[in-house]
Amino acid sequence: MAVKLVAKPGEVEFPKGMEGVIASESKKSYVNGLEGKLYYEGIKIEDLAENSTFEETFFLLLYDRLPTADELEILRRRMVQYRTLPTEVYNLIETVSAGYLAQPMAVMRTAVSMTALFDEAAEEETELAYEREAIKITSRMATIVAAIDRVRRGLPILQPRADLSHAANFLYMMTGEEPDPFYAKVMDVILITHADHGCNASTFTSIVVASTLADMYSAVVGGISSLKGQLHGGANQRVMRMLDEIGSVENAIPWLEDAVAKRKKIMGFGHRVYKAMDPRAIILHEYAKEVTKRAGTERYLEMAEVIEKFMIEKLGRKGIWPNVDFFSGVVMSSMGIDSDLFTPIFAVSRVAGWTSHILEQHTDNRIYRPRFVYVGPATQEYVPMDKR
Amino acid sequence: MAVKLVAKPGEVEFPKGMEGVIASESKKSYVNGLEGKLYYEGIKIEDLAENSTFEETFFLLLYDRLPTADELEILRRRMVQYRTLPTEVYNLIETVSAGYLAQPMAVMRTAVSMTALFDEAAEEETELAYEREAIKITSRMATIVAAIDRVRRGLPILQPRADLSHAANFLYMMTGEEPDPFYAKVMDVILITHADHGCNASTFTSIVVASTLADMYSAVVGGISSLKGQLHGGANQRVMRMLDEIGSVENAIPWLEDAVAKRKKIMGFGHRVYKAMDPRAIILHEYAKEVTKRAGTERYLEMAEVIEKFMIEKLGRKGIWPNVDFFSGVVMSSMGIDSDLFTPIFAVSRVAGWTSHILEQHTDNRIYRPRFVYVGPATQEYVPMDKR
Repeated sequence: MAVKLVAKPGEVEFPKGMEGVIASESKKSYVNGLEGKLYYEGIKIEDLAENSTFEETFFLLLYDRLPTADELEILRRRMVQYRTLPTEVYNLIETVSAGYLAQPMAVMRTAVSMTALFDEAAEEETELAYEREAIKITSRMATIVAAIDRVRRGLPILQPRADLSHAANFLYMMTGEEPDPFYAKVMDVILITHADHGCNASTFTSIVVASTLADMYSAVVGGISSLKGQLHGGANQRVMRMLDEIGSVENAIPWLEDAVAKRKKIMGFGHRVYKAMDPRAIILHEYAKEVTKRAGTERYLEMAEVIEKFMIEKLGRKGIWPNVDFFSGVVMSSMGIDSDLFTPIFAVSRVAGWTSHILEQHTDNRIYRPRFVYVGPATQEYVPMDKR
Repeated sequence: MAVKLVAKPGEVEFPKGMEGVIASESKKSYVNGLEGKLYYEGIKIEDLAENSTFEETFFLLLYDRLPTADELEILRRRMVQYRTLPTEVYNLIETVSAGYLAQPMAVMRTAVSMTALFDEAAEEETELAYEREAIKITSRMATIVAAIDRVRRGLPILQPRADLSHAANFLYMMTGEEPDPFYAKVMDVILITHADHGCNASTFTSIVVASTLADMYSAVVGGISSLKGQLHGGANQRVMRMLDEIGSVENAIPWLEDAVAKRKKIMGFGHRVYKAMDPRAIILHEYAKEVTKRAGTERYLEMAEVIEKFMIEKLGRKGIWPNVDFFSGVVMSSMGIDSDLFTPIFAVSRVAGWTSHILEQHTDNRIYRPRFVYVGPATQEYVPMDKR
């Protein structure tokens, strides 16, 4: 190898955070950040958001094509069949989520990991078993989040309803009411638009774990662990914290000026990959109009416009539009969902991408083992304790 | 960027498994595979195995230098203080490990994740808190493995002993007896020699998770999830399965000839990184001589010689020595440890490396976000269900 592997700090150049480094080939999604386009399997995210369901999108990502009606019905039934959690996992959630004690992503990470211990098929090492576990885990993630929500609000955990879609049942398990079709559609759109997004950190974590030939649960737990970080899944929660801190449209400019003076980060604007507007933001902006109108929370959207104008006029930063995290936060908050459940709901969606990429990794696997440049102490003797 | 991100399969060349790709700078360990050398912080692994303890090696990896006597005593006391698990985690292990039901790495993954839910400090986002969690988790990993072992053998879980070293207490918690100093030393050597090894898949997983600024538990859970895979942590377990299958020295040659004919993989020989003999294998080979003599399992070492000779003579493969997994498997097996606890014990050691690399990642962080080359379907319309 040509690269120097023992060096002084800074001596060997490499892209930090592996920016631009190719991890693998993938057939799943393509992000064209320059033009603001996102495709799953070549299909525009706008078309999927309008016409598809989470179940169909999950099929598309898993098998690289749209299902026939029969195939979709089979997947739907399998997902329904797996919706209930083992009793012990419900018990865990009852214990740790009561009184809003435990961090929801930490509960989800544990609940998914624990579900494996009550799944006799968890360690089966065939592609058929991996595929079944992918469907099982994807189905159950929604049940886990709903259970956390119910327990925290002091309400009994609800059993899933087999007659509802994944999105509608998810809302039902949280609220106890069959959702208005509009809200069921909104949840479907949230789940569809967040299902995959290239080689983001959590998807990457999933395939690195999968590359050791660890089981499906381990790989998904890796994804959850990564998504939990505030630089990844936590962004939309922080948007809502900011909007609630601002409080009113009138207070937006004074708050922003203060924030700029104190060098605080303005959340929910701009994206590392998109140089044009994130297409998911455009989709969710449309839904946000109706959701905020119904909920009487239009001020959130008005704030977005004020902040956007401020960013462009005062900071001279062009193209800093409100991003997907801004609108998904506004939508979910207006639907009465606690902001610390935004990241878990992101996971309920992204698990479709994780599991699809994990199965794809298996098709042409090599264990991920990059290198460090060693920049530590030069070779040295072990100095005995009495000589230190 | 110059790289084409939409392409035909195979069109864009990149190193599979990120071989040779630089992930980051690191001060922790350096593997010189060509010369068969391994250093932690510039100190030869042979010197550490001979003179150090797991606690001291952990200090070295965490803080990039050897401790003074006072510093080591403080770390030792902190580790002792954290040895006990939350009651709920003991209960989980009692439930799932009885009757050898659950896979031990899956139990460990869950137990570590669950411990966070009973740790009020788990979500604190300061470097001091991360460091404390690193010590806490590293200490408790041994308790988790010992508890799994006791429950499986139908024995009561033992409370840790504050007067024993990490390695001796670990053996005590498994056996209920204060270990012979020789065996305590052997366990210390196993823990020291496995504590770090460059940018292996589990360490890499840990720092990818850490780069999202997820908490210490999440990053360690990521490491455990990766280590669980049979291409990573599972190798020494498979060595023992092979040796038990061979059964006797006399049967080695017939077994090998059959294995070659059937293209079975010979486990425990060779290593992707080392082109010379793995220094850890040399160290553990020495201990294996005494351990197998005491246990009356010398046949394992004799088999190693027969297999090595066969590989060189019949397969013409030079330099295919028995590797570290071979000898660690033989040593632990001869000490009466179940082979499916080898990977968990590897984790008890490697967590020192994971946590050290996680803290190092924080010092100059950027989220890991490499790219995929998109090789999926070309842009296509969403075809409505009735037209498919």
